[in-house]
Amino acid sequence: MRLSSYFLPVMKETPADAQIVSHKLMLRAGLVRQTAAGIYAWLPLGLRVLRKIEQVVREEQDKAGAIELLMPTIQSADLWRQSGRYDAYGPEMLRFPDRHAREMLFGPTNEEMITTIFRDAAKSYRDLPRTLYHIQWKFRDEVRPRFGVMRGREFLMKDAYSFDLDEEGLRRSYEAMFVAYLRTFARLGLQAVPVRAPTGPIGGDLSHEFHILADTGESALFYDSAIEDISREELLAADASTIARLTGLYAMEEEEHGKVKDCPVPAERLRSRRGIEVGHIFAFGTKYSAAMGLIVQTKEGGQVHPQMGSYGIGVSRLVGGIIEASHDENGIVWPDGVAPFEVGLINMRADDPACAAAADRLYADLRGAGVETLYDDRDERGGAKFATMDLIGLPWQLIVGPKGIERGVVELKRRATGEREELSLESALARLTG
Amino acid sequence: MRLSSYFLPVMKETPADAQIVSHKLMLRAGLVRQTAAGIYAWLPLGLRVLRKIEQVVREEQDKAGAIELLMPTIQSADLWRQSGRYDAYGPEMLRFPDRHAREMLFGPTNEEMITTIFRDAAKSYRDLPRTLYHIQWKFRDEVRPRFGVMRGREFLMKDAYSFDLDEEGLRRSYEAMFVAYLRTFARLGLQAVPVRAPTGPIGGDLSHEFHILADTGESALFYDSAIEDISREELLAADASTIARLTGLYAMEEEEHGKVKDCPVPAERLRSRRGIEVGHIFAFGTKYSAAMGLIVQTKEGGQVHPQMGSYGIGVSRLVGGIIEASHDENGIVWPDGVAPFEVGLINMRADDPACAAAADRLYADLRGAGVETLYDDRDERGGAKFATMDLIGLPWQLIVGPKGIERGVVELKRRATGEREELSLESALARLTG
Repeated sequence: MRLSSYFLPVMKETPADAQIVSHKLMLRAGLVRQTAAGIYAWLPLGLRVLRKIEQVVREEQDKAGAIELLMPTIQSADLWRQSGRYDAYGPEMLRFPDRHAREMLFGPTNEEMITTIFRDAAKSYRDLPRTLYHIQWKFRDEVRPRFGVMRGREFLMKDAYSFDLDEEGLRRSYEAMFVAYLRTFARLGLQAVPVRAPTGPIGGDLSHEFHILADTGESALFYDSAIEDISREELLAADASTIARLTGLYAMEEEEHGKVKDCPVPAERLRSRRGIEVGHIFAFGTKYSAAMGLIVQTKEGGQVHPQMGSYGIGVSRLVGGIIEASHDENGIVWPDGVAPFEVGLINMRADDPACAAAADRLYADLRGAGVETLYDDRDERGGAKFATMDLIGLPWQLIVGPKGIERGVVELKRRATGEREELSLESALARLTG
Repeated sequence: MRLSSYFLPVMKETPADAQIVSHKLMLRAGLVRQTAAGIYAWLPLGLRVLRKIEQVVREEQDKAGAIELLMPTIQSADLWRQSGRYDAYGPEMLRFPDRHAREMLFGPTNEEMITTIFRDAAKSYRDLPRTLYHIQWKFRDEVRPRFGVMRGREFLMKDAYSFDLDEEGLRRSYEAMFVAYLRTFARLGLQAVPVRAPTGPIGGDLSHEFHILADTGESALFYDSAIEDISREELLAADASTIARLTGLYAMEEEEHGKVKDCPVPAERLRSRRGIEVGHIFAFGTKYSAAMGLIVQTKEGGQVHPQMGSYGIGVSRLVGGIIEASHDENGIVWPDGVAPFEVGLINMRADDPACAAAADRLYADLRGAGVETLYDDRDERGGAKFATMDLIGLPWQLIVGPKGIERGVVELKRRATGEREELSLESALARLTG
């Protein structure tokens, strides 16, 4: 993409209303714009990141055997009356009548709807187990939306729902999602700490939250530092034994930790850090299958309410979470897998024909090799171009200047480390396309 | 995908409330389920089709130089007051207060929002021309939703918006989108007739609707049969001359046609057919840029309100439209580019070890070659499997039976023509992966 014809409105000033670094950087780097309180438009650069995260989430859901569908944003209040949640849900739920005065709502979650869809389709044990998921915009009418996309009102979530014949099946489905989550966060370059969550009064006995560590997190965590010793490679290859190892290690939110009389972790291994909740998995049994009349025949001819679980990931929140975890004083430092472009190609002198010709050629070659490249071909000062590239945080910068071109070299910079290297055009290309 | 672990609830009976064939077939083939009046959940098979259509639309938008972003579903009423449309828009607009009693709405279209986003980013002639688009769910509170996804309330649209310095620029942007539309519909296997649309009182002088021909269409068209002579190949390679040729040929909606005194088309070439509107492009000039205060500096130092156009495609409506245009008495006949899977692999005897082993091997080989395959590995009668495959309309059926396997052959059936051919396993694979 040529920056001269792209839509990337960066800001020089830090917006006054942004309190946390991810919010500031998302505005400054032209990823999003607020269109109403807690509601954001995703500008082209931000949308590319959002889609990449979404795709990682999708691939790991698919790998875990979950099947994608898509439920609508608007739901009927009647559905929620059947589960008893319509009156129980607070003012976060956006409710409104349609033109025929039927009560509707913008879905904050989808247990009721997926249960009725599954109920009308599944009749026997042959139709189970299944895990269905969707990635859809949701709305929660937060009283004080803040922190940009981290606590917005309209946000993108992945929700999965599992249906099993018995509790043993539910445990297997839950573990499969647990593994998918570990892999997902590792692929996104994030260290995620699974925390045993209190399940509250709505039934079910198994629930974990996944928090990524960041100083600006809203939750306070206490955990065994041995969790940090589990390598990214191990998480990418996670299986049931990884879960056993991880859940065997102490990790609690502050409130729960406060209730613990004798913390089993030696003081020197007890870490206290802040975390951002980016995922939540929850085995709740028959709460919704019983309420919505979902019944299937067993192999033996009996009838059961399937055991269910639900599994969420905050996809749009992850964009902010990744920035909180990966930035420096100059801007964002995207992990490779989610960067909006892999390479930022900088032509230092758009008015120098030899320099421009070399940069054009590199751009064509990179595109030809399928390398996602943002090409700063604008007639601007070099300093401004460097600042923009650092701000938007692409993993590689390829810098083409007139003096280098005279000598047949370009400069390759790694954003994360700041390392620069002079290379021939061929070597630079080989490095980026290899 | 193995059907034994997929989620594909087909229906034997035709649903009573479905009036048109696409609605019936979408319910019967397990593509969608209605969750409230005019609101649908996209089941896994339907979502695959929707995503494929979306991707074709996206690729042609990108090719035309449009840049993708994503605006939210919920908008502030204040935005619409600035353009004067808040009071003008009818009860189709879903309006509601949020918890702080601020007036909000579920966006039926995005002219106001994109104009403010562009206004806050673009300052000079260097920032133009640009065409920005998004693909997002919209809501129009139809008084009588019907015809399934063809006239639903929550629906997926592609909206593009162009910004140019002058009318000549707007004409170029309009033509680029016109070309993109011709290519898009041709790639989707559809014959689309562009009809000059009356532009109404809101300004601008150039507008075309794109209709696909189907007996169940809501509009009545009169057009020169020479339009039908333009080949798919020519439309795929469309350019400005194609537009000139097409728009030079007579095509009118009934009402406009009725006003024409001397129809220029000889009677033997005048066709009267019904059509489904699937796209609408519209050059409206400075209506929104003036109302929303969008001003940019010209090269000469002056200031102008940019000339704008908007360009819509009904993405979810196209799923129904394609079925209306392509089905037979046994079910859907998907064009190759939008089929949810390319191949339906049928194991005729799941309980025959040799037959099952051969089918398993074919499935592994097809997947290995990247061919999207739905594998009916269920323990069901052959007749039921054939009926399901015909109903869901995948382009190819590969049929593996015990007698054929004894002789080393399988059967390959083309859904569109019903042609069947006996082939060795190797030849069948070569045909499908070639």
